[in-house]
Amino acid sequence: MALSISRNVNRLFRVVQINAARRRRLCAAGAPGKKGPAVGRVFSGIQPTGVPHLGNYLGALESWVTLQDEYSSVLYSIVDLHSITQPQDPQLLRDNILDMAASLLACGIDPARAVLFQQSVVQEHAELCWILGCLTSLPRLRHLPQWKMKSKQKSEGSVGLYTYPVLQAADILLYKSTHVPVGEDQVQHLELAQNLARVFNTRYGPVFPQPRALLSSTQKVKSLRDPSSKMSKSDPQTLATIFLTDTPDDIVLKIRRAVTDFTSEVTFDPENRPGVANLVSLHAAVTGCTVDEVVGLSVGLDTGEYKGVVAEAVVERLRPIRTEIQRLRADRAYLHSVLEQGAETARCLATMVMEEVRKRVGFS
Amino acid sequence: MALSISRNVNRLFRVVQINAARRRRLCAAGAPGKKGPAVGRVFSGIQPTGVPHLGNYLGALESWVTLQDEYSSVLYSIVDLHSITQPQDPQLLRDNILDMAASLLACGIDPARAVLFQQSVVQEHAELCWILGCLTSLPRLRHLPQWKMKSKQKSEGSVGLYTYPVLQAADILLYKSTHVPVGEDQVQHLELAQNLARVFNTRYGPVFPQPRALLSSTQKVKSLRDPSSKMSKSDPQTLATIFLTDTPDDIVLKIRRAVTDFTSEVTFDPENRPGVANLVSLHAAVTGCTVDEVVGLSVGLDTGEYKGVVAEAVVERLRPIRTEIQRLRADRAYLHSVLEQGAETARCLATMVMEEVRKRVGFS
Repeated sequence: MALSISRNVNRLFRVVQINAARRRRLCAAGAPGKKGPAVGRVFSGIQPTGVPHLGNYLGALESWVTLQDEYSSVLYSIVDLHSITQPQDPQLLRDNILDMAASLLACGIDPARAVLFQQSVVQEHAELCWILGCLTSLPRLRHLPQWKMKSKQKSEGSVGLYTYPVLQAADILLYKSTHVPVGEDQVQHLELAQNLARVFNTRYGPVFPQPRALLSSTQKVKSLRDPSSKMSKSDPQTLATIFLTDTPDDIVLKIRRAVTDFTSEVTFDPENRPGVANLVSLHAAVTGCTVDEVVGLSVGLDTGEYKGVVAEAVVERLRPIRTEIQRLRADRAYLHSVLEQGAETARCLATMVMEEVRKRVGFS
Repeated sequence: MALSISRNVNRLFRVVQINAARRRRLCAAGAPGKKGPAVGRVFSGIQPTGVPHLGNYLGALESWVTLQDEYSSVLYSIVDLHSITQPQDPQLLRDNILDMAASLLACGIDPARAVLFQQSVVQEHAELCWILGCLTSLPRLRHLPQWKMKSKQKSEGSVGLYTYPVLQAADILLYKSTHVPVGEDQVQHLELAQNLARVFNTRYGPVFPQPRALLSSTQKVKSLRDPSSKMSKSDPQTLATIFLTDTPDDIVLKIRRAVTDFTSEVTFDPENRPGVANLVSLHAAVTGCTVDEVVGLSVGLDTGEYKGVVAEAVVERLRPIRTEIQRLRADRAYLHSVLEQGAETARCLATMVMEEVRKRVGFS
């Protein structure tokens, strides 16, 4: 039995290595069947919540890295104007902005191919937000997810929280973005941006292209302590979430304590065995294998042993990222210089579009 | 009787001349009892609705001119970001901005003593508006006059219209303004600005002074066709409103057609004789006399004759303003240069304050 497990584990790691190599080749060559990057502009933003967790990485950031090779122009913004729609400690926010920059770079965002910048330093975001707000009816925002979710947590939400999707629309349209990677929970917000592009163009003349959704295909990573909810930074259960800076020991502990069930076999049955299915999904995602592949390779392992395999795969996958985050965090001057360089490019693009917008609106 | 009228009219004009001279001396010397201008910063804004009417002039702009001598720092903004909370034709908006600049200069706003600028060219207004919106609860704005008045006229109001008072607060706080000339209908909006200054200072540390209201003491000028409502630019009755560019013939016609009543005597009784009282107020305001003075001097005139006297006084008061607006309107390059110079100063002040705000919030 011990020999069988060891053989399976070894096979599993070989598959992982092959898949990792395949992924790297794909990255270097761009999307399959394409000669070069597609013409188009990708925009996406992430709130500076500090170091991202594994769910952020597998659900969004990994595809952000790939998109750098697939599109001719790519902008990624650390959206601090969005983050103040919830109370923030200023010093923590400052640190979180740099931590997010370090994390994005460590994950593979390359300042030579993607414009990485802090939203609040490009004033045009707030400016366009005001203009688009004048084209948005107040009730239009009432049923959007951001408000429905977060205003319930507080006694009452702020104007900023309510108008959050208008700022998101401004973020996207400000760069005449054509493609926006979004999770399913953000689709309605993108629809507002599409709608506002149409409304603006109809009233003032053609300025904005219709931004299209790039729906993230990666399955959502669930909480390790409650596989019915998403993995989240703000989960009060500290063992529920794996951060990109977690040590190997942290990761092993969190996965060992992950909620599973009383069946020892490894299967993929999200309905009836959500905890084990979450581990299988995670395992497939970090190794680049399919779910069927990892289940097939895990035959003979009980869930306890399987947790060890998954933990090892996660540790290996995150090791270079963790090391790089630590290195970059110590080099604040470099992080500032990357963000400043990104801001300059973003400002340059935003200035051109806003010049056009101001003329159309009648401000100049 | 004819002699008596003529004598009264002559006396009236002498009083007018004496009062005009007194006003000029006051302006030159600053407020009575003061050696120089008070230390403080005045901010006010006016929407670019084209050429102002007599109600705007007597209710606000006249005191704007006086304030230039009374305070050490004065900023007046043509608030075009506010104007797009209602649909605007871009070309008309562009023209209206220049017309408003010409009108303000013609009324006596002096670019050497007041910073005159177009709001939308100073991006910090929208930026601070976003930050303050994150400190404003959504229901806080529901009962403010701007929303209550204007959202009823439309089927539904926009986000811009709803959050208008937050932008107003940003306009004021952006320059650390200490004094804000307001009409009574704007007091609640100023209270929001005061409240937001407190909330910001409590959360982030002391940045903003409490702006104080400079309540306009001038009685509201009423519509000439319906003395129960304010004189308004958008009045559908063309004879109801006197514009600063109206010709003497226009003015005489509008005042001759002003609604009065069947009593011929001139008295000041706003309750029972609102039409005549409106003419008396107007007369007092344009001549710089008190209501009692003009009533006393009008003894023996019937309301028909009195209308002639009032019309003449209004014509004389507006004559130099009208001539100057026409001259300035023809010199668009000069108007642009004044606005650009004002924008530079405003930007300089706004940049310093926003640098402080960004640090406090944790953006830098």
